[in-house]
Amino acid sequence: MRENLLAHIEFPSDLRKLSMNQLLQLAQELRDFIIDIVSVKEGHLGASLGVVELTIALHYVFNTPQDLLVWDVGHQAYGHKILTGRKAVFHTNRQLNGISGFPKRSESEFDTFGVGHSSTSISAALGMAIASQLKGDNKHHIAVIGDASIASGMAFEGLNHAGVTDANLLVILNDNAIGIDPSVGALKNYLTAVKEGKNPKVNNMIKSLNFDYSGPIDGHDIFAVIQELERLKKVKGPKFLHVITTKGKGLQKAEEDQVKYHAPGKFDKITGEIHLKEEGHLPPKFQDVFGLTIVELAQQNEKIIGITPAMPTGSSLKFMMHAFPKRAFDVGIAEQHAVTLSAGMATQGMVVFCNIYSTFLQRAYDQVIHDVALQNLPVIFCLDRAGLVGEDGATHHGVFDLAYLRCIPNMIIFSPRNEIELRNILYTAQLGLNHPIAIRYPRGRGEIVDWQQPFHKIEIGKATLLKKGARIAILSNGFIGRNITLAFAEISNSESFSLYDFSFVKPMDETLLHSIFNEYESIITIEDGTIIGGFGSAIVEFKSKYNYKNNVQLLGVPDEFIEQGTVEELQQYSEINVKSLVSILSSY
Amino acid sequence: MRENLLAHIEFPSDLRKLSMNQLLQLAQELRDFIIDIVSVKEGHLGASLGVVELTIALHYVFNTPQDLLVWDVGHQAYGHKILTGRKAVFHTNRQLNGISGFPKRSESEFDTFGVGHSSTSISAALGMAIASQLKGDNKHHIAVIGDASIASGMAFEGLNHAGVTDANLLVILNDNAIGIDPSVGALKNYLTAVKEGKNPKVNNMIKSLNFDYSGPIDGHDIFAVIQELERLKKVKGPKFLHVITTKGKGLQKAEEDQVKYHAPGKFDKITGEIHLKEEGHLPPKFQDVFGLTIVELAQQNEKIIGITPAMPTGSSLKFMMHAFPKRAFDVGIAEQHAVTLSAGMATQGMVVFCNIYSTFLQRAYDQVIHDVALQNLPVIFCLDRAGLVGEDGATHHGVFDLAYLRCIPNMIIFSPRNEIELRNILYTAQLGLNHPIAIRYPRGRGEIVDWQQPFHKIEIGKATLLKKGARIAILSNGFIGRNITLAFAEISNSESFSLYDFSFVKPMDETLLHSIFNEYESIITIEDGTIIGGFGSAIVEFKSKYNYKNNVQLLGVPDEFIEQGTVEELQQYSEINVKSLVSILSSY
Repeated sequence: MRENLLAHIEFPSDLRKLSMNQLLQLAQELRDFIIDIVSVKEGHLGASLGVVELTIALHYVFNTPQDLLVWDVGHQAYGHKILTGRKAVFHTNRQLNGISGFPKRSESEFDTFGVGHSSTSISAALGMAIASQLKGDNKHHIAVIGDASIASGMAFEGLNHAGVTDANLLVILNDNAIGIDPSVGALKNYLTAVKEGKNPKVNNMIKSLNFDYSGPIDGHDIFAVIQELERLKKVKGPKFLHVITTKGKGLQKAEEDQVKYHAPGKFDKITGEIHLKEEGHLPPKFQDVFGLTIVELAQQNEKIIGITPAMPTGSSLKFMMHAFPKRAFDVGIAEQHAVTLSAGMATQGMVVFCNIYSTFLQRAYDQVIHDVALQNLPVIFCLDRAGLVGEDGATHHGVFDLAYLRCIPNMIIFSPRNEIELRNILYTAQLGLNHPIAIRYPRGRGEIVDWQQPFHKIEIGKATLLKKGARIAILSNGFIGRNITLAFAEISNSESFSLYDFSFVKPMDETLLHSIFNEYESIITIEDGTIIGGFGSAIVEFKSKYNYKNNVQLLGVPDEFIEQGTVEELQQYSEINVKSLVSILSSY
Repeated sequence: MRENLLAHIEFPSDLRKLSMNQLLQLAQELRDFIIDIVSVKEGHLGASLGVVELTIALHYVFNTPQDLLVWDVGHQAYGHKILTGRKAVFHTNRQLNGISGFPKRSESEFDTFGVGHSSTSISAALGMAIASQLKGDNKHHIAVIGDASIASGMAFEGLNHAGVTDANLLVILNDNAIGIDPSVGALKNYLTAVKEGKNPKVNNMIKSLNFDYSGPIDGHDIFAVIQELERLKKVKGPKFLHVITTKGKGLQKAEEDQVKYHAPGKFDKITGEIHLKEEGHLPPKFQDVFGLTIVELAQQNEKIIGITPAMPTGSSLKFMMHAFPKRAFDVGIAEQHAVTLSAGMATQGMVVFCNIYSTFLQRAYDQVIHDVALQNLPVIFCLDRAGLVGEDGATHHGVFDLAYLRCIPNMIIFSPRNEIELRNILYTAQLGLNHPIAIRYPRGRGEIVDWQQPFHKIEIGKATLLKKGARIAILSNGFIGRNITLAFAEISNSESFSLYDFSFVKPMDETLLHSIFNEYESIITIEDGTIIGGFGSAIVEFKSKYNYKNNVQLLGVPDEFIEQGTVEELQQYSEINVKSLVSILSSY
């Protein structure tokens, strides 16, 4: 049995002592290490397996961390983390107080830039390269970006600027023809043609942007990659290397079903077989409620369109893409385009459901304001993964949406408190609201197994009394109200509390609010979002406007970036989980 | 003397009755009409003069408004407005209750999409084209986009999607090599090479994205344009026409100084000479305070970098670009890239001033959150044209920034109350704050002529008592507080009021707030931003948190999109101008 090389590698400086042939062995060991741990601890598998050789080659050739390496999106950086001082803690990946699932500056000097959202790497690395130039530092600056990410507008902006500089920037296109779902768009077709030799390499698109283009090369041929990186080290100015890889490389099932093995959950590390969870009588995921309901509605309303920027599987729009392929669109990682495309369709009378993760709608904020709300176009935004999302951590929580949407005129904002409410607001929205609406719902399962009930129209702006009590009114926003209900079962003074679901943050049910402020001495608000500017703020704005004197306590996510952990752990940190609420309510 | 043709044209249907030769005469008349009115009423001149022939040709060839025409940015659409029913009201352009300076759906069915911010036209027109396809409507869909706008990431996203559809979409690139300032970037160089015949037309970048490319053609040769549009009408799928024009065409001075004549103010319609305003003893523009101060600071601090996305003149960063060309960057219309480029530079210890108009920072909201604030990088955002901006209207007001920035952890938010405060916060920020800061200041002139005083460090998070009074505390945010001071001079009960400048919206001066809430029975807040989620909301959140019972009245911009007008008129509408404040304060 050969000596295990990885066991002796803590940092890239150790790696650089190996012979070229030993690197082949190390690649196998690194791949096995990733599979061993991710198979039991879960995480992003496929992307990191695809760049094992590239990761080793980069740290072998370049003098990291002096040379600056930026991993776009970053969920492909597991190998990078393992080779840069975090092998011993890699099993804490994505856990509370463990390491982040993405590169993070505060975690390691090898993580030069925090990533999580896509397509930032070229801009960031160019910024570093220009800074080095000004400081007279002789460093290399490398951005590794996938073919799905490079099709996003922001990446183009970075390339367009870099091309007119003489910055020492190397952009490596990790082309595996897939993001989380298969890549789409004209650029993807162009790259495929390049790979297949159908496009001449001269005068290609990247060269048009004034980059020194090389490739495509096989990203799993570690010798070829090293040789090319060594050559590019000596080339001045902006350079572009096109590397072909296979997502999930080395685990047969992961190569065969790349979508499923993007983040497969627990699996058998030998066979690759995914350990299925018992799902018999569980409530559905909110995502599937969206995905299945839009299909039902689209059968009846031929004006309905579905749009997702690169999340057909995650959002469950895939159901509609299968049922109505001409009316459901995956536009790639292009949130800005997705929103304005929706607006354009809405001008022609289409009923557009634009499904974007809450955290990614931040990418299209101006389009929501300028192209949708200002024109009062009735686009239906479905904000998936709103609130605390768990293990993806600080980059991905959808906790700002209530605050950043509430200040936009014309918007309706709704948070369903369960699957049936989500189903009914989707139904209601497609009947026509004459305003844009944002429907925000959390990641994962709801609470109602038997959710496919006949449709009912929801009255816009109306709040609901869920439980009547004596002294204190709790105003909750959507699904987080469930924690209140669960807390009621564990406290002795539950008769003191009324619970109202203010699923509409805008417009507010002011009529009911007046009677609540007149009836109760104290009021508590709870939301799965930042405490600043959101639902609770709307309530205190109301209170101030009408000069009520009631006490109002705001519960929500504190004004700081929340790290990774389970949703339960992060709700505990924010004091909005059941246990915290039991303690808070008991003190009233 | 020939009969005036324009006098008989109300709508494109009239235009289509003219002979080809009459179109030449019409072009001259339309140009004269624009010059006549803009020379006395002000507005965007150069862009509209550049597309006179293209405008006529488009309405001549296509069956507008059935065929759908989208003008990117829209300030080049004056000819379009004049030819589509608004000739008689064109003199009300950009005025209160007049027509908008940009296409606007509620104004005319010929304005198919509201524009103002750039680079939205391809996405919008593609959405319309896909909708038409689904509805079985046989329409043409045309996006006219400038070479500065097409370099923005969002436009690339639209092209990338359109290229894999068979939508009936015509993208017309109006290539005049300039936006408001000269265009930049690798794409611009590429287009220039195409124009000069240095790049082969085959296999070019646009063809790589699967568009049927034609051009370049002379956009002032109306016959050539009409002929090519007629041909393209018969071509199926996505098409791209490259048209070369001259900004300011037909007015010699406007052609010669395209930056100055983008929106020149009043000028002599014959000579083109701009009527200079008397500027002798006026206070400076906040823009110039920024532009001149950053040069002063950059002389002392070699880490200072200046970045603007396409607004070197508007922001006055041009001064630094002239003084330190290697340390000041115009990155083009690329707000997302500008912010993350700044973040990348900041990781390497550079002190980056990223100057973006408040309304355009909406384009980089995610980058502010994800790339800057989450990593707590000390980027210095200078938000120009914050608050109500006047004649540019609803698309351009910077009234949401306080609300959308306040919910972001780690951010410092500061609004200077005068030029000296702006100067000193720029000084203070470059000393190092260990946090990102957003400095928001209005368009136009301040109040202090003798502003170039020695630098003083500002204490972060500290509010200032400006005037002591008896019963009521007014808390103002920055420059808008000046209206309070002016109102004091006109009321008889001014001794009732104290005035505090809370220039920091975050962090808040909570120590002072406690003493204010303890000392005064009533509190009034005033801000030049939306009443929802902004400065006033921060005060009522504080009040609620500490359970104060004082009355708090919030003054600010109401929760609706505010149209165009003078700043004074729009402040009056929002009840934050001096006259309104006199009335409000008198009633206390």
